[in-house]
Amino acid sequence: MSLIARQPGAAHAPADDAFVTEQLRPFLTDLLAREQAAWEEQGAPWQDPPELLLAYLADGKALRPRFCYWGHAIAGEGTGPLLVRAAAALELLHAFALIHDDLMDGSDTRRGRPALHREISRRHRAHGWAGDPDGYGRAMALLIGDLAFALASRLAATLSPAALSAWHRMIDELVTGQFLDLAGAARQDRSTEVARTTTLLKSGRYTVTGPLRLGAALGGLPELPPGLARYGDLVGEAFQLSDDLLGVFGDPRRTGKPVGEDLASGKPTQLLACAADLLPPAGQALLALTGTPGFSRADIAELTGELISCGARDHVERKARRNVEAACAIVDDAALPPRVAAALRALAMAATHRHR
Amino acid sequence: MSLIARQPGAAHAPADDAFVTEQLRPFLTDLLAREQAAWEEQGAPWQDPPELLLAYLADGKALRPRFCYWGHAIAGEGTGPLLVRAAAALELLHAFALIHDDLMDGSDTRRGRPALHREISRRHRAHGWAGDPDGYGRAMALLIGDLAFALASRLAATLSPAALSAWHRMIDELVTGQFLDLAGAARQDRSTEVARTTTLLKSGRYTVTGPLRLGAALGGLPELPPGLARYGDLVGEAFQLSDDLLGVFGDPRRTGKPVGEDLASGKPTQLLACAADLLPPAGQALLALTGTPGFSRADIAELTGELISCGARDHVERKARRNVEAACAIVDDAALPPRVAAALRALAMAATHRHR
Repeated sequence: MSLIARQPGAAHAPADDAFVTEQLRPFLTDLLAREQAAWEEQGAPWQDPPELLLAYLADGKALRPRFCYWGHAIAGEGTGPLLVRAAAALELLHAFALIHDDLMDGSDTRRGRPALHREISRRHRAHGWAGDPDGYGRAMALLIGDLAFALASRLAATLSPAALSAWHRMIDELVTGQFLDLAGAARQDRSTEVARTTTLLKSGRYTVTGPLRLGAALGGLPELPPGLARYGDLVGEAFQLSDDLLGVFGDPRRTGKPVGEDLASGKPTQLLACAADLLPPAGQALLALTGTPGFSRADIAELTGELISCGARDHVERKARRNVEAACAIVDDAALPPRVAAALRALAMAATHRHR
Repeated sequence: MSLIARQPGAAHAPADDAFVTEQLRPFLTDLLAREQAAWEEQGAPWQDPPELLLAYLADGKALRPRFCYWGHAIAGEGTGPLLVRAAAALELLHAFALIHDDLMDGSDTRRGRPALHREISRRHRAHGWAGDPDGYGRAMALLIGDLAFALASRLAATLSPAALSAWHRMIDELVTGQFLDLAGAARQDRSTEVARTTTLLKSGRYTVTGPLRLGAALGGLPELPPGLARYGDLVGEAFQLSDDLLGVFGDPRRTGKPVGEDLASGKPTQLLACAADLLPPAGQALLALTGTPGFSRADIAELTGELISCGARDHVERKARRNVEAACAIVDDAALPPRVAAALRALAMAATHRHR
């Protein structure tokens, strides 16, 4: 179901819904079925990875393909096979990013279900296979992430040079952002600068600006108009700020992941960078404990309260809302076809009205 | 230093040595320096992954680039920038494969030194960073493997369509082979069929036939002559059989990795498939214990002895030698330029005269 359709009051966006359900999903199903057949031809008596990857792909909101679709619509009419391939590459890339991210963070849940490595450990136990089930789950999930990336790269290599350049830039930004996420937590960096760069690269560029740029390049616009690149960075940042807030203050039954993991590991989020400015001494002492083994569930709960009372939560919420307003103003000023403008506004608003 | 130059008595192959030292290495150094600069421009205050990846790349034997070089020489004279890019893509792909393989197998050493994830854990401890050092080492190594794959894919995307098709085929075979390696161990599969397919895909195709095919495609031969594809599969299999033997009977001071890991995890090697045919009942009982927590160091030593006395070691050694003889006969029969034929014979012989 569409992200948009889930938001009460938000506009429906049937064009990208139709693109996702009628073109993207069948393309992915067919691609993975052919991959499985290729494995069989190679002599593999089992083909778990393409099977598991297909099931994994069925679950997403297809947010990046939607932005790619609308980036293409900025440049021209129609869709065409290259747009579907690009959208499929984005979904595969996102599966790769999520699967490896859960391994890197040691996260056991995703979208309200066991993370892929946990699900594979469970199967290992159920089959009574040899070796350590947890080690097997992690190894196999790592490999399925690699397969997703390999398939994404194979699709991307067939795109136009301008689109391919947008693709490589996006991946470079994703990897750099992911590194800053890990390295910032290890170094317990609380600078606004690192938090903003991490957010921009890991989420803004990767979730919104990159897919928009990719779609526009496929439509014949080698450069995204500067206003729309700004729109992408603003909406992407708002999306990540909302994600950071959900990770601390969200309802685990709706987000599908436990709260407090980001606090426990001391991720370099803008929420914590803001808290480093605003917290009173007792809160600062708690903040300094994040990322250490001594940081308990009770500390998470206490720091969560401090983040509210010092005003950090309000600050981040306001910033996300202001980003969305600024992004919508850019769309209003740009001379876009009305259906494109409406869709970009709706997607921007959805970024801060998230439950998961 | 060249693999060939290290083998006493084997012919020198100065052309591929010169290619590796004068073209490939400087290309990789420059690529990683530019990558590091790009990270800095993106606002990353630290750039550990490109730095660590460059150091990692300095260490290899560049075996796959050599086969690629000679595959290209089959098709024509000269080298050119595309051949260097393809060779660099192969080295990056191999770094990705080794780094992720060590994570999947939980191997703590590589080339006589700590595996990358162990080295990064050590740095984490030395810096006194926050969080679990081992978890950080695994997460960062995973990401550096992803970076290597991303850079390899970026280079490969610029190759000709025929070369790109050889590239994608090779990656598909690598991922399938790696899956069979993990899945075969978990299922404790002892069939010759699975062991042979795993060897062929994970090593034969990936180490020899794929790089040869890639080089030939770049040189203008869209299909590798069937004889040379057979040469590649034979030599690649011999290379893997020698690797399997070194993993059980090798000298850890020379191989740089502890012996017995493959036995402890019960990898689906041809050595164990052969043992399943030849071992007497006591040995079979030991073989059935591989991959279980009850399999001790003493069991490894005992099974190692049984593999010798039942004849499995001799069988595998003979098979590797026969492969090399058959591969050299193919080279003799093919109408190849003499310097190409000499290099392919020397590389084939080196495959079974390995110490590491």
